[in-house]
Amino acid sequence: MAKLWGGRFTKGTDKAVEDFTSSIAFDARMYAEDIAGSKAHAKMLAKQNIISQEDCDAIVAGLSKIKGQIDKGEFPFSVALEDIHMNIEKHLTDDIGEAGGRLHTGRSRNDQCAVDLHMYVRKAVIEMGELIVDMQKALIETAEKYSDIIMPGYTHLQRAQPVLFGHHMMAYFSMLERDFDRLLMVFKHADIMPLGAGALAGSTYGIDQTHTQELLGFSRIYENSMDAVSDRDYVVEFLSFASLVMMHLSRLSEELILWTSNEFNFIELDDAHCTGSSIMPQKKNPDVCELVRGKTGRTYGHLLGLLTTLKGLPLTYNKDMQEDKEGIFDAIDTVHFALSINAAMVRGMKVNGAHMKAVLDDDFSNATDMADYLAKKGVPFREAHEIVGNAVHHCIEKGCVLLDLSVEDFKAISHHFDADILDAISIEACVAGRNNYSGTAPECVERQRNNGKQVIANEEVQIDSWKAIVNSVQE
Amino acid sequence: MAKLWGGRFTKGTDKAVEDFTSSIAFDARMYAEDIAGSKAHAKMLAKQNIISQEDCDAIVAGLSKIKGQIDKGEFPFSVALEDIHMNIEKHLTDDIGEAGGRLHTGRSRNDQCAVDLHMYVRKAVIEMGELIVDMQKALIETAEKYSDIIMPGYTHLQRAQPVLFGHHMMAYFSMLERDFDRLLMVFKHADIMPLGAGALAGSTYGIDQTHTQELLGFSRIYENSMDAVSDRDYVVEFLSFASLVMMHLSRLSEELILWTSNEFNFIELDDAHCTGSSIMPQKKNPDVCELVRGKTGRTYGHLLGLLTTLKGLPLTYNKDMQEDKEGIFDAIDTVHFALSINAAMVRGMKVNGAHMKAVLDDDFSNATDMADYLAKKGVPFREAHEIVGNAVHHCIEKGCVLLDLSVEDFKAISHHFDADILDAISIEACVAGRNNYSGTAPECVERQRNNGKQVIANEEVQIDSWKAIVNSVQE
Amino acid sequence: MAKLWGGRFTKGTDKAVEDFTSSIAFDARMYAEDIAGSKAHAKMLAKQNIISQEDCDAIVAGLSKIKGQIDKGEFPFSVALEDIHMNIEKHLTDDIGEAGGRLHTGRSRNDQCAVDLHMYVRKAVIEMGELIVDMQKALIETAEKYSDIIMPGYTHLQRAQPVLFGHHMMAYFSMLERDFDRLLMVFKHADIMPLGAGALAGSTYGIDQTHTQELLGFSRIYENSMDAVSDRDYVVEFLSFASLVMMHLSRLSEELILWTSNEFNFIELDDAHCTGSSIMPQKKNPDVCELVRGKTGRTYGHLLGLLTTLKGLPLTYNKDMQEDKEGIFDAIDTVHFALSINAAMVRGMKVNGAHMKAVLDDDFSNATDMADYLAKKGVPFREAHEIVGNAVHHCIEKGCVLLDLSVEDFKAISHHFDADILDAISIEACVAGRNNYSGTAPECVERQRNNGKQVIANEEVQIDSWKAIVNSVQE
Amino acid sequence: MAKLWGGRFTKGTDKAVEDFTSSIAFDARMYAEDIAGSKAHAKMLAKQNIISQEDCDAIVAGLSKIKGQIDKGEFPFSVALEDIHMNIEKHLTDDIGEAGGRLHTGRSRNDQCAVDLHMYVRKAVIEMGELIVDMQKALIETAEKYSDIIMPGYTHLQRAQPVLFGHHMMAYFSMLERDFDRLLMVFKHADIMPLGAGALAGSTYGIDQTHTQELLGFSRIYENSMDAVSDRDYVVEFLSFASLVMMHLSRLSEELILWTSNEFNFIELDDAHCTGSSIMPQKKNPDVCELVRGKTGRTYGHLLGLLTTLKGLPLTYNKDMQEDKEGIFDAIDTVHFALSINAAMVRGMKVNGAHMKAVLDDDFSNATDMADYLAKKGVPFREAHEIVGNAVHHCIEKGCVLLDLSVEDFKAISHHFDADILDAISIEACVAGRNNYSGTAPECVERQRNNGKQVIANEEVQIDSWKAIVNSVQE
Repeated sequence: MAKLWGGRFTKGTDKAVEDFTSSIAFDARMYAEDIAGSKAHAKMLAKQNIISQEDCDAIVAGLSKIKGQIDKGEFPFSVALEDIHMNIEKHLTDDIGEAGGRLHTGRSRNDQCAVDLHMYVRKAVIEMGELIVDMQKALIETAEKYSDIIMPGYTHLQRAQPVLFGHHMMAYFSMLERDFDRLLMVFKHADIMPLGAGALAGSTYGIDQTHTQELLGFSRIYENSMDAVSDRDYVVEFLSFASLVMMHLSRLSEELILWTSNEFNFIELDDAHCTGSSIMPQKKNPDVCELVRGKTGRTYGHLLGLLTTLKGLPLTYNKDMQEDKEGIFDAIDTVHFALSINAAMVRGMKVNGAHMKAVLDDDFSNATDMADYLAKKGVPFREAHEIVGNAVHHCIEKGCVLLDLSVEDFKAISHHFDADILDAISIEACVAGRNNYSGTAPECVERQRNNGKQVIANEEVQIDSWKAIVNSVQE
Repeated sequence: MAKLWGGRFTKGTDKAVEDFTSSIAFDARMYAEDIAGSKAHAKMLAKQNIISQEDCDAIVAGLSKIKGQIDKGEFPFSVALEDIHMNIEKHLTDDIGEAGGRLHTGRSRNDQCAVDLHMYVRKAVIEMGELIVDMQKALIETAEKYSDIIMPGYTHLQRAQPVLFGHHMMAYFSMLERDFDRLLMVFKHADIMPLGAGALAGSTYGIDQTHTQELLGFSRIYENSMDAVSDRDYVVEFLSFASLVMMHLSRLSEELILWTSNEFNFIELDDAHCTGSSIMPQKKNPDVCELVRGKTGRTYGHLLGLLTTLKGLPLTYNKDMQEDKEGIFDAIDTVHFALSINAAMVRGMKVNGAHMKAVLDDDFSNATDMADYLAKKGVPFREAHEIVGNAVHHCIEKGCVLLDLSVEDFKAISHHFDADILDAISIEACVAGRNNYSGTAPECVERQRNNGKQVIANEEVQIDSWKAIVNSVQE
Repeated sequence: MAKLWGGRFTKGTDKAVEDFTSSIAFDARMYAEDIAGSKAHAKMLAKQNIISQEDCDAIVAGLSKIKGQIDKGEFPFSVALEDIHMNIEKHLTDDIGEAGGRLHTGRSRNDQCAVDLHMYVRKAVIEMGELIVDMQKALIETAEKYSDIIMPGYTHLQRAQPVLFGHHMMAYFSMLERDFDRLLMVFKHADIMPLGAGALAGSTYGIDQTHTQELLGFSRIYENSMDAVSDRDYVVEFLSFASLVMMHLSRLSEELILWTSNEFNFIELDDAHCTGSSIMPQKKNPDVCELVRGKTGRTYGHLLGLLTTLKGLPLTYNKDMQEDKEGIFDAIDTVHFALSINAAMVRGMKVNGAHMKAVLDDDFSNATDMADYLAKKGVPFREAHEIVGNAVHHCIEKGCVLLDLSVEDFKAISHHFDADILDAISIEACVAGRNNYSGTAPECVERQRNNGKQVIANEEVQIDSWKAIVNSVQE
Repeated sequence: MAKLWGGRFTKGTDKAVEDFTSSIAFDARMYAEDIAGSKAHAKMLAKQNIISQEDCDAIVAGLSKIKGQIDKGEFPFSVALEDIHMNIEKHLTDDIGEAGGRLHTGRSRNDQCAVDLHMYVRKAVIEMGELIVDMQKALIETAEKYSDIIMPGYTHLQRAQPVLFGHHMMAYFSMLERDFDRLLMVFKHADIMPLGAGALAGSTYGIDQTHTQELLGFSRIYENSMDAVSDRDYVVEFLSFASLVMMHLSRLSEELILWTSNEFNFIELDDAHCTGSSIMPQKKNPDVCELVRGKTGRTYGHLLGLLTTLKGLPLTYNKDMQEDKEGIFDAIDTVHFALSINAAMVRGMKVNGAHMKAVLDDDFSNATDMADYLAKKGVPFREAHEIVGNAVHHCIEKGCVLLDLSVEDFKAISHHFDADILDAISIEACVAGRNNYSGTAPECVERQRNNGKQVIANEEVQIDSWKAIVNSVQE
């Protein structure tokens, strides 16, 4: 097939090269953005009298027709035409004739593919924002639903101190709040318009970038055309965002896997979110959690892959940059699934509060509180720590826990102990006593939930403002 | 040596384990932050009557003394004491006695090491911000100094269209502007206080986190104690920032290496920024550029390393997290060197404008303008592209360039050409004609420089506001 | 759709979970291996009287029928059936009835999917081996075709010393020789049979792994069933192999890009391996080289992705491991394209020997030889180095090169120079003089080419021995 | 300080550049290799009459003296002298005069630093091999010591089927066997001599690489000088090896962390391998396991870092390659600690067999065996699977396990059950029945241990043959 750039060449392209350099298999995903960008470009050209209004009208109508065909799955994509841009343009020219050939006036594939991806990422930011908000809602709901449940808190996967189950859930809420934060930066850097940068240096046609900017609803125009066509920072930033979300979800997944194990037995996942074994009839596997944890790897891989690709590239556009899309598309899908399924899993799981309570009653999670008791009576903390350490060691040898000791036993350990020690180290007291701002006491977790609702409200306002920008695109 | 946590243990720690788990070799770098954090903690404890004012005074004085010793390199660090926190606390207790043992009341190493790193990263953000600003100034100065120089612009490392040398410099300015942007997010997430989270669940002593926050100048307190001790997002964000800066500088390095090659011969680096060969007497190697490009690898490595470490960790603190520091410390040093040396190199290089001009006179970088000429006369761009492609092919065979053709030659190529074609495709016209907002025309680049100065002014305001926060720490 | 493992469950699987956990979209690629593995398993079961011969015959015939359908693209794959294994088994049972239900006796999906991937990787090793050999042949041919051409050799991208063009080509030959080496280890670790490991612990049916091993042509059986189902080392090793091949080809790509630049002008790539610009008519871009260089990133990403996924997984099989396939499949395709297209490009390029010679005549690449001359006359090398360094500096100021100096000029520089100095530093002498084993002298490069042909012959023997193993599979 | 390469320069080096390009802080680690390489080079030069025997003797004696000084920590290293090579050479020349200036005849820093690193890596391979062997011995010993213990085997972290504890240990043995395998490839590619490649093209002095090869005990010489100075494959291969070892140990670490949790309670680590909490007196944390798991990240980071650094570098030596050392040095230390401490931990841990048994008695790990029982009676496996799945579901509702059912209960479930069903699904029968080659039956695990001892014997032979090569270096 004759290339649109073939004038200088004496020989056709090798078929394997066509296959290797073609990107239509994945960049077709941006057809709506490509068409919107082309329409805006055509309208600007007409406004500046670079093309006639008739040509513009024909182009806009032709593009609308093509969009309809692609929407319906009826568009004949061709690998030989390399990419979504050439596929659409060639088809347009075949359809409307010479006017189609004028569409590319004053732009290049370099700024065209850049504007498409910018617009695509803006939409993806909104999608991600909504998914984060929904997952945060699921966490607050769950924290509320089980607001009385006390569970062992862990450090080093060793039981450490009792915490409210809702406190544990709200830790993930805070992580997702920071993830949402990062979207602000991604959107800011995606929301800059590269169109008009041309191949690298701008255009000689007297184009009006401000008009295109208005039609496409961009908040800013790139200051520098060379930067405009070679910048992929916003894609790297999206992949960094995605890597951190997946890192957070991999931690939640690890915990859900632990908690559904026979050994922990803290929760039960809904049957709808588990699968069985082809051979072991008793199995109910937390596959979804494992997949989310496993897919963290591919997300990191996409981030490192793109960073590696960009390393050491001279300005401006190099074909290496075609590698910018598959990673982000896959990351969008991965994070989409991970967030939506986790929201459903958290909402659907049953929390086994009775077992958690039983565990705590048979444990040393209140040892810190026993040391704190002594410290409050004036024993230097380091000394109190040692006294309690020895008491724990003693109990382990006797096969009992601290709450099994009598007040006399306590007094034998240290004369600072009084009759109130047993109340002081009850599980409920351990939780209620940690009532500083960030602490796990019920009123603190309630405050977190309330503040969380305000955070969500603010995020929703933010999403609406993003939508206002994206929806201002005039087609 | 007796451990501060040894009460529960019947046996000492293996020496190899001590070496392996010890972090004093690198976390000593945070001694100033550790001491500031401890002073604030002590003052808050005294205010809340958890320790006496006398104890507080003794602690604060003892810590000041230790800081003086470390400042002077006279402090006896011990590997057996594991980390900077234990080294200081043990020394303090040896010095001031029982009061020292009360310092750790109401906190844990988990929130203590977290607050140290938060404070350290806040300072690093300011350092990075200042380095970026200086590098941006170097770029503007250079763009101004050589404001008349035209050079070939490249895509695919093939000459594409002429651009102003200053336009090329300003592309890097824009990249660094986005790098500065990212520091906002790093600072925001570093500027949250974890102290008071205790081991994981808060404290039972009636501590007042708001007071500590005020003493340490933090903008916010962590909502959730479990999140507070297990969050390393801000470190990952710093490493993402560092990776993008290094990616940008690796691109500049690649270009400086190309430009100093005999083949390009566009610039000469100052002797002070090059080294020679132990064997080849004629060599003047752009080692610094190569090292910056090469060190991009280690920065990516630190980013991936920490992401990998955090993947799949259950809440809250796990010892894996000790791996958070060496990478960021090395990244800070690497970016520091890379930015500061690049600023000096850009300022010190000589630009060979005459050679760039000679190159352009013997080249086809004006072919787009020839096609644009036709398109402006009504030839569909695709057709114009083909006509010029054939003309280029013809010239290559004849061994000449487009500017060598006569007006008659042009007319023979297409009847649309008139006598003004030679002016229209002069190198100066090619640059001047690209005068849209992002374009390379002299007035556009001047605007970029002026806007750039405003960007720098805003960044300096931002740095001052960060400094105001960091300097509000009361010791 | 009813699951084959549904007995223990009270509720169906969530549709989104089905989509998320389904792997049929990519693991269908292993259908031939899955069917071969199932046939061998069935035959072994019959031999051991675990199933009847009739059942075995029905299974084998049914599987052959399914293979025919998939070969022809007529098989109705279902996402709800999760993976290639369940798709085939369900279809088989629908077709042949109860006998189909007996196929899974004594195995699990865990060992089944493992044996499929092992067999698939064995074949991929052969494919990669053949591609490397062909690329090595292309390098030797090119080295032979241009055996007289001398070019500047570079360090730090600065001209260093003249080398034979063929010497430069043969450097890549050596890299690929090591790449081939690595395939030995990949094959060795892929060529171990996991079938019979069951879910994790082996089988109670009295299966005979030695018989299955013979039918599937494996050199070894896993010693340990738990290792068998959780080992993905061979996949990581393949991705390490792929990363190194791509790293080597990224270096060749960088050089081809440099050499086709206007500035270097050392080679011309065939039109069939380049593409043009949609806007700049003069452009002929080395897109393929750029894409190969760019795709290095995704290959590294797959390696790091899988390593990340495997980090910290407890034994034995975890669903995370489903992430083992997409990366290696994509890496196989990427390396396939990169090697085959590079072989074609190297064979098709034109080398511009005349320009390389002109460059060397106007350069200081012979400076080392001038210093060597002095050193051979007894001047300590460090002193000779300094004398020549000064001479080079002097020439640069005068605008000439060393070969432009007269014998008198040389004598003025040092009394050690005689009339033979001009011959001693001619470009030809520089190359011919470096005649130690690894050197660039013509006879050394000829030896490399001859040794290279022997290397290829040995590699072909190796490939044949791999094929003998893989082709011993009895279907 | 005057540079050894300063002749061509008019200006000294910037101090920051000196600091940035200096490598003495880490490459001093290779001083023994550097001195051995220099001695061999000097002896070869003398044999070829390129330097006099007197000069050679002075050089060798001078180098021995320097080695003695460095061994004793008395050598005055200088950052201004850039690297270990220049430090030693400058010192030598200061000491022995003009003869020192002749040492560098016929070589370059490019081949010199390469030969040093090759020799260093050869030694590191031996060190790693010995550590792997010791860890494998620890695993066999532990498998033997607890040969009767049965534990739950897991998939998806859900209990799956009972396995021998020794079987679980031997899975790690097999992983380490493959890790050892990979050392073969690292050693093979490290054991090629680059010395004589000069800067990039060989030497004009009539050097005899075969003689140097013999003196340094290398098995091969690089075929191609350009490859010799730009090859870092063996370093990447070492880092790939290290990444896989750490991945394996991260899995073991995860399991040890799980097993020492209160919930699993399968093992107790020695106090010497744990640390406590500064605040929670009851804690005994598996810090070492966590650190090994965490340090997996940095090892992956080094691998990616070097791969990134090498991506897209043109031949031959570029300063970027100086980044080859810090990563591998750190990886060597990391793997050294990880392997040696894990060997000690495995040897020192106490296995809680009684608790494992109790867990199995109260569990469904024998469900597969119940299904197998039915299948052996002719029930299609898929049907048997469903029957048992329903039985499990029934038991869960009743709060019992399968072994709690009576023969009558079984018969009610399916008429295929007979009185022998209870024996058939006893935990011991479940293990003993899986007696195929890779299975967990006691005789299979015994065979694994015996084969393992033979594997170790072979590895020790291999290590000895490596040592023979490395020890053949003649100083």
